[in-house]
Amino acid sequence: MTAPWHRGANAVATLTFDVDAETPILAAGHRFGAHMMAMSHQSYGPDVGVPRILDLLDELGVPATFFVPGWVAEHRPGLAASIVERGHEVAHHSYSHRSPVAMTAAEERADFERALAVFAAQGIDIAGHRAALWGASWQTPRLIAEHGLRYDSSLMGDDRPYRLATDAGPIVELPVHWSLDDWEQYAYLPEPHIGSVIESPVKVAEMWRAELDGMRHYRCLFNLCVHPFLSGRPGRLLALRGFIEYALACGDVHFARCCDVADAVCADPAIEPRTVAPPFVDPAVYPV
Amino acid sequence: MTAPWHRGANAVATLTFDVDAETPILAAGHRFGAHMMAMSHQSYGPDVGVPRILDLLDELGVPATFFVPGWVAEHRPGLAASIVERGHEVAHHSYSHRSPVAMTAAEERADFERALAVFAAQGIDIAGHRAALWGASWQTPRLIAEHGLRYDSSLMGDDRPYRLATDAGPIVELPVHWSLDDWEQYAYLPEPHIGSVIESPVKVAEMWRAELDGMRHYRCLFNLCVHPFLSGRPGRLLALRGFIEYALACGDVHFARCCDVADAVCADPAIEPRTVAPPFVDPAVYPV
Amino acid sequence: MTAPWHRGANAVATLTFDVDAETPILAAGHRFGAHMMAMSHQSYGPDVGVPRILDLLDELGVPATFFVPGWVAEHRPGLAASIVERGHEVAHHSYSHRSPVAMTAAEERADFERALAVFAAQGIDIAGHRAALWGASWQTPRLIAEHGLRYDSSLMGDDRPYRLATDAGPIVELPVHWSLDDWEQYAYLPEPHIGSVIESPVKVAEMWRAELDGMRHYRCLFNLCVHPFLSGRPGRLLALRGFIEYALACGDVHFARCCDVADAVCADPAIEPRTVAPPFVDPAVYPV
Amino acid sequence: MTAPWHRGANAVATLTFDVDAETPILAAGHRFGAHMMAMSHQSYGPDVGVPRILDLLDELGVPATFFVPGWVAEHRPGLAASIVERGHEVAHHSYSHRSPVAMTAAEERADFERALAVFAAQGIDIAGHRAALWGASWQTPRLIAEHGLRYDSSLMGDDRPYRLATDAGPIVELPVHWSLDDWEQYAYLPEPHIGSVIESPVKVAEMWRAELDGMRHYRCLFNLCVHPFLSGRPGRLLALRGFIEYALACGDVHFARCCDVADAVCADPAIEPRTVAPPFVDPAVYPV
Repeated sequence: MTAPWHRGANAVATLTFDVDAETPILAAGHRFGAHMMAMSHQSYGPDVGVPRILDLLDELGVPATFFVPGWVAEHRPGLAASIVERGHEVAHHSYSHRSPVAMTAAEERADFERALAVFAAQGIDIAGHRAALWGASWQTPRLIAEHGLRYDSSLMGDDRPYRLATDAGPIVELPVHWSLDDWEQYAYLPEPHIGSVIESPVKVAEMWRAELDGMRHYRCLFNLCVHPFLSGRPGRLLALRGFIEYALACGDVHFARCCDVADAVCADPAIEPRTVAPPFVDPAVYPV
Repeated sequence: MTAPWHRGANAVATLTFDVDAETPILAAGHRFGAHMMAMSHQSYGPDVGVPRILDLLDELGVPATFFVPGWVAEHRPGLAASIVERGHEVAHHSYSHRSPVAMTAAEERADFERALAVFAAQGIDIAGHRAALWGASWQTPRLIAEHGLRYDSSLMGDDRPYRLATDAGPIVELPVHWSLDDWEQYAYLPEPHIGSVIESPVKVAEMWRAELDGMRHYRCLFNLCVHPFLSGRPGRLLALRGFIEYALACGDVHFARCCDVADAVCADPAIEPRTVAPPFVDPAVYPV
Repeated sequence: MTAPWHRGANAVATLTFDVDAETPILAAGHRFGAHMMAMSHQSYGPDVGVPRILDLLDELGVPATFFVPGWVAEHRPGLAASIVERGHEVAHHSYSHRSPVAMTAAEERADFERALAVFAAQGIDIAGHRAALWGASWQTPRLIAEHGLRYDSSLMGDDRPYRLATDAGPIVELPVHWSLDDWEQYAYLPEPHIGSVIESPVKVAEMWRAELDGMRHYRCLFNLCVHPFLSGRPGRLLALRGFIEYALACGDVHFARCCDVADAVCADPAIEPRTVAPPFVDPAVYPV
Repeated sequence: MTAPWHRGANAVATLTFDVDAETPILAAGHRFGAHMMAMSHQSYGPDVGVPRILDLLDELGVPATFFVPGWVAEHRPGLAASIVERGHEVAHHSYSHRSPVAMTAAEERADFERALAVFAAQGIDIAGHRAALWGASWQTPRLIAEHGLRYDSSLMGDDRPYRLATDAGPIVELPVHWSLDDWEQYAYLPEPHIGSVIESPVKVAEMWRAELDGMRHYRCLFNLCVHPFLSGRPGRLLALRGFIEYALACGDVHFARCCDVADAVCADPAIEPRTVAPPFVDPAVYPV
């Protein structure tokens, strides 16, 4: 089934780069700020990975979306602007990269709004949001709608964009999935303990091609999540380039920024907002 | 050695789909019901995965068995019936998806019977059972026999169907194995912490083909366990399709529902019920 | 460098089967005896895996060594004899499959002697020993020598057989290694928690061939450790068969029982016993 | 962009061997010194792996750098000299292999200086340092400069050499990365618990070739970290040989010792020292 957001293609690809820098490590424990190696491991992302990625996108002529924590934008003042200048989208990725489900509702709101303030101060327009660790709470969509953002990209209830009703109006969901995330394939640190075996880019590109082919068959949104500190490494970036070239050669894959997909979904009256609610969990059935 | 249940083939394939939805996550802790992303990750199974799987089975003309927790059937009233209407079997997969070995005997019995009540209320005939997490206790086979079900599919004592004696009469066991389960290959969540590396469908299909070939050689039951929230993803579903097409092309693989295999085993006087008992464990030898 | 134990070949292959059955699971906690599925997972080894393995060895005409815990031999009275009757070696693999390093010296001794008593009562000659979990303590070699056994196969100080001096005389060590063990590749259970991802037999056979080729180059002992409850599965057993056929086709690999390799090493005056002692560990350097 | 340290090549390869022997295991707990198997697993590195590696380097005519903990050099008196005699570099890898971030500043300093004393007593010139577990603290670069060493190789802030400013003058950083370390691919021990699945050398060599190709494209330092107790195994060493032969056949890869790369970087006025500081971490943002 083809919808307007497909733009005539079989699959739409949104390349998204989560520019987390030091934040996931500090969120795991502020003591890790004392680990010089771990900090250098993370700073590689904005310092080495992002410039290479921007050049790669230029060479291939594909647009992308960069999800940036407010803390990162604040600590690297020119970063967000340098991305926008190259024609890409910068989007909201929390302030601190702490997962919403690990915060109180008030903490999540404060963190959410602090990131918006950073972007506002830098003159960066924000259309969408992705929860840190994709850890959306049941409050998250409402926060997004309330602050005038048009989309979220943290949930997994489908592999095609959908609309979510909230008390503050509907938003678009651009769903993600673990299998289209480079973190589980590449991330490794002993402290905080992250990852297990480190996969080869050959395997990762193979897996992404298999999913793209499936999504071309089922007419889905291929929403790839890549981290500059991981996929910015030389061999992995060549694998990402090879994957994008494969997708371009397919001839039926449309590349778009998240905001553009969200706008196309918003404009399609055939896509009704879904009302999703937390399950009622009977403590007699689930005592733990 | 060929038995009547082989139906003249070298291997019999039972495609089984465990429609767990939210239950394994809630069983890991009811607090995870507050995690909107985790809930969306699970609802993808019945909402997106199952319809696609039903279409795939139709296209390929193969029957299957869907193991559904009572909680899931109850929360999605039309689901079980929609599976039966397409010619497939719905079977008992606990009520709550809590493992029997994590419950008292009374809790296991109550959970077992509550699922039966759900299916009875929906007019769904139930012939067999699979323990949540395959965590059968020594009481489980007896519960199955006592309630008139004909088979279990949770144990690993063989790779051919066998019969188990219980105090309430014999049942058939259709054995499973971790290597024929998509969970260990694909499942990943940070909270509750599930999985490590996420495998490529290319590797998974290769592994299943290797096992099928071994089972054609040794004349076994290829009892595949697939989860719609995992293998319902586009690339993985194409890999499953490719695997089924491979099995069909072999020419010596018979596809059947679990209940049909169980009935063939029941009707075969050459298969004697086995009496299996828990090992006597001397605390002097095993103090922990 | 070629020694008499090479028998003119470039590499010597000892196929060893650790017939652990239920013991590793009970050693992880006697409560797991209540887990019917886990027990069935383990009983598959002696019940289904071992007969298939014996047939495979017959077909290929290669000898092997079966390391059997005393508990297993005791609970399955005919098992050890059935292996010896087919021309293979049965060796000592502890009584309980508890690791020596998890026992006191007295417990290790009692466990060691209890296994010997089981084999003596069954009329099974024992020439060698392998520690449970390869967890040899510094006392283990001495126990082996003291009881008149000729070899151990638990250590990793080389990839060629070597001799170890003990207070009770020298023994031969037939070294093992994690990369030649099917456990890390295939074993998976949620409780006790064992394993992570389950590997394909295609990968495992590839890895073993790579190591065999390396060992042909460096003239080593290819001491393969396989578990019937794991590699007895159909697809894995075909992969093992394919690996053995590959080794036979190499033309420079000699297959032998462990006891025969040990005897050849004993008879070689050029191999001097090594004296190995625990490191002195200064608590000022290693306070934890 | 090509710099003098490229020596006209597209990528520079530093083969580095971390001769850890027993130290990482003792650093995980001195009780593991009682585990004879674990100790044998580690002694394989200097006893079997290092001689084979030295022969391999001779055959291929490539230079290398061996990072040796002071404890290892002390316990194996001729080891460091035997490496230098073959034309390779021996460098500082802590005394005890305890991670700097797990020690106090005074402990790190004492450990650092104790290693220097060992090498001085053995007449081994030391030009550079690598932190145990790459666990550099913010004090580590200063210690290196203060003691007159010219480079560190523990950080990950780039994939080309860079200079770090310290209070005691600048040093060169030769960055490392987890994807160019054999530990995450091969290491496995149950106690202390290390590793998960063990990878095939075929996959590891594939991954390293992919990274080398990426680094030839981006003109980087391919700084490979290999452990003799892991990659000294026969099949893995053949894979390493195959990888080096591949790099040599590329024709645009220059092999060098770390000290030589560091000297070339020092001599290049275009490479300015970077000032890197720990992030300010607001406890209101990161309370944990």
